[in-house]
Amino acid sequence: MQTELSRQLGAEHAIFGFTPFPAVAAALTRAGGFGVLGAVRYGAADDLKRDLDWLEAHTDGLPYGLDVVMPAQKVEGVTEDEIEAMIPEEHRQYVRDILAAHDVPELPEGERSGWRITGWMESVARSQLDVAFDYPVKLLANALGSPPPDVVERAHRGGIPVAALAGSPRHAERHKEAGIDIVVAQGYEAGGHTGEIASMVLTPEVVRAVDPLPVLCAGGIGSGEQLAAALALGAQGAWLGSVWLTTTEADLGSRALTRKLLAAGPGDTVRSRALTGKPARLLRTAWTDAWEAGEGRPGPLPMPLQGLLVAEANSRIQRWEVEPLLGTPVGQIVGSMDSERSVQAVVDDLTRGFDRALARLNAIADRH
Amino acid sequence: MQTELSRQLGAEHAIFGFTPFPAVAAALTRAGGFGVLGAVRYGAADDLKRDLDWLEAHTDGLPYGLDVVMPAQKVEGVTEDEIEAMIPEEHRQYVRDILAAHDVPELPEGERSGWRITGWMESVARSQLDVAFDYPVKLLANALGSPPPDVVERAHRGGIPVAALAGSPRHAERHKEAGIDIVVAQGYEAGGHTGEIASMVLTPEVVRAVDPLPVLCAGGIGSGEQLAAALALGAQGAWLGSVWLTTTEADLGSRALTRKLLAAGPGDTVRSRALTGKPARLLRTAWTDAWEAGEGRPGPLPMPLQGLLVAEANSRIQRWEVEPLLGTPVGQIVGSMDSERSVQAVVDDLTRGFDRALARLNAIADRH
Repeated sequence: MQTELSRQLGAEHAIFGFTPFPAVAAALTRAGGFGVLGAVRYGAADDLKRDLDWLEAHTDGLPYGLDVVMPAQKVEGVTEDEIEAMIPEEHRQYVRDILAAHDVPELPEGERSGWRITGWMESVARSQLDVAFDYPVKLLANALGSPPPDVVERAHRGGIPVAALAGSPRHAERHKEAGIDIVVAQGYEAGGHTGEIASMVLTPEVVRAVDPLPVLCAGGIGSGEQLAAALALGAQGAWLGSVWLTTTEADLGSRALTRKLLAAGPGDTVRSRALTGKPARLLRTAWTDAWEAGEGRPGPLPMPLQGLLVAEANSRIQRWEVEPLLGTPVGQIVGSMDSERSVQAVVDDLTRGFDRALARLNAIADRH
Repeated sequence: MQTELSRQLGAEHAIFGFTPFPAVAAALTRAGGFGVLGAVRYGAADDLKRDLDWLEAHTDGLPYGLDVVMPAQKVEGVTEDEIEAMIPEEHRQYVRDILAAHDVPELPEGERSGWRITGWMESVARSQLDVAFDYPVKLLANALGSPPPDVVERAHRGGIPVAALAGSPRHAERHKEAGIDIVVAQGYEAGGHTGEIASMVLTPEVVRAVDPLPVLCAGGIGSGEQLAAALALGAQGAWLGSVWLTTTEADLGSRALTRKLLAAGPGDTVRSRALTGKPARLLRTAWTDAWEAGEGRPGPLPMPLQGLLVAEANSRIQRWEVEPLLGTPVGQIVGSMDSERSVQAVVDDLTRGFDRALARLNAIADRH
């Protein structure tokens, strides 16, 4: 099942997988898809280098990509400490109150908060890119707007196409103007940062807005029927993130979280600013509930303050697997994530489901 | 383009159209689709009878349906006046303030508020049904939960299948238990009352939940590519509402409103309780903005109070075409409603787009 884009990128199937786990990215690439490693969790360039070495050794020369989070607008000369100082005490106290209400212990002595997202800082993202350009990365994606022009130029000099996520047609047009090669249309139902427009409407709107650029459909895709729908809407492939979270290759670091994902229904997510300060779809938890509007609640801070505010709390929640608060970004397809499967099994299901959907459509067309 | 369901119902295409306008319903049925007339705006049974006579005379013996709004739970012995008395003065004053801020004139002397929705009252819906069962209606739909058991039985005795809208798999399961024959999966992107789950996820979830009952996909469908996507997701057809609003057969009663619909983008709708008290997707206007949460704003009342509260205001806004406040329920596909076309032209586009999408999918499948 190949589109012009997947053929250009050297993948057998038009299935693009975004994942923070090198083992998932490698398995997807080996299964004929296109694995894209999310770099946002890597603080140090050395850690990324280690994992790219591993990825390179486990993909048999097949193609994979890298996703960084690089804001187009620079924040010049502001240190992380200075940003930390902008967080109001009321919010810090509110976080302490939530943790206390759920008896969340401190991290063990000497254990540092590993959860902190620093990849969104331009300096970090740039050091990641310096590493990445030493590897035969076949796609560079940016989860936060168009990357800066010099990064796009550098990628293009290396023959690497650049993809960027968009939640609206206007957003997608700006990517096109910035020289982006591929637009990922991120629908309302997607996990992580999302806009308000659902994939069914967003995908064709973005295809029309950036024509002739190729578009990937993200949001709502976990089965081959949904993949067929995405391609029917004019996408050149599907960009899947959530479905990999319950694969056997994924390392969520918490069995309790895996169990919660397997048990969740399609209505058990919420679009919330509780994690990063920007609206992102997350598993609904006591944590996201606590950040909903309401009396005596301060509400989330803007990005990047909210992410810094909640970083240590999240590490503690995950470290001790405090079930009511335990969550993750995930899309509405979480309702269909009912069993743990290998990445290969997911890809097999996707291609078989696609074939089934296509046979069904052909039968519908023929019935006169 | 025929599914098992459209064949059973005697339609050439698996295109179901919900509309308050008899001329649209008739044109769709004549074009090979299945027109469904919404009865909620009919206060008097005689008006409905007149329009069903017209519909019968203009559909050449081809099939059409009727959509009523009938709550499963009766509110016994409460009059409309008693319900009116439950509306707080603060809300009445707020409505007056909005109208004053936009200089909305009173209705002309002797002109009554025609906008009031009374069809949601069980007594009204039942008198509509008494009329409807005298006509060869081929489908009875209910926009508000499962209809009462005696209504389902009466329809079944007459050989008429019953459809009901659902916004979640659980909701759909309850319809199945109530003996409903067809479930309309109403996605987040749809116009009118909607849940939180987008069509891409909701449709296959509902198909799975009510198997082997047929499911129609509603929400996000205005093109043949979207129709193909809906069928790929396992639906037995698509249920379209918004796309008919800008057809030449539609009678919105306001050129200004038609112009607003033609100009709107996919992000220009909002899921709001401003019109009926239940979350419904509406064109975003100064009216919906005024009912968003905020200081000094009372926020919407629950159904049915909000609908009664705003009825006269809506009549005045429409009567005088007060542009900033002028709106209608409409889905996110409003962004693609760029020109006025006949219903026949819309159907032609749908079937051609379906064929195009299918050819594309077959090419993708063949490319090895």
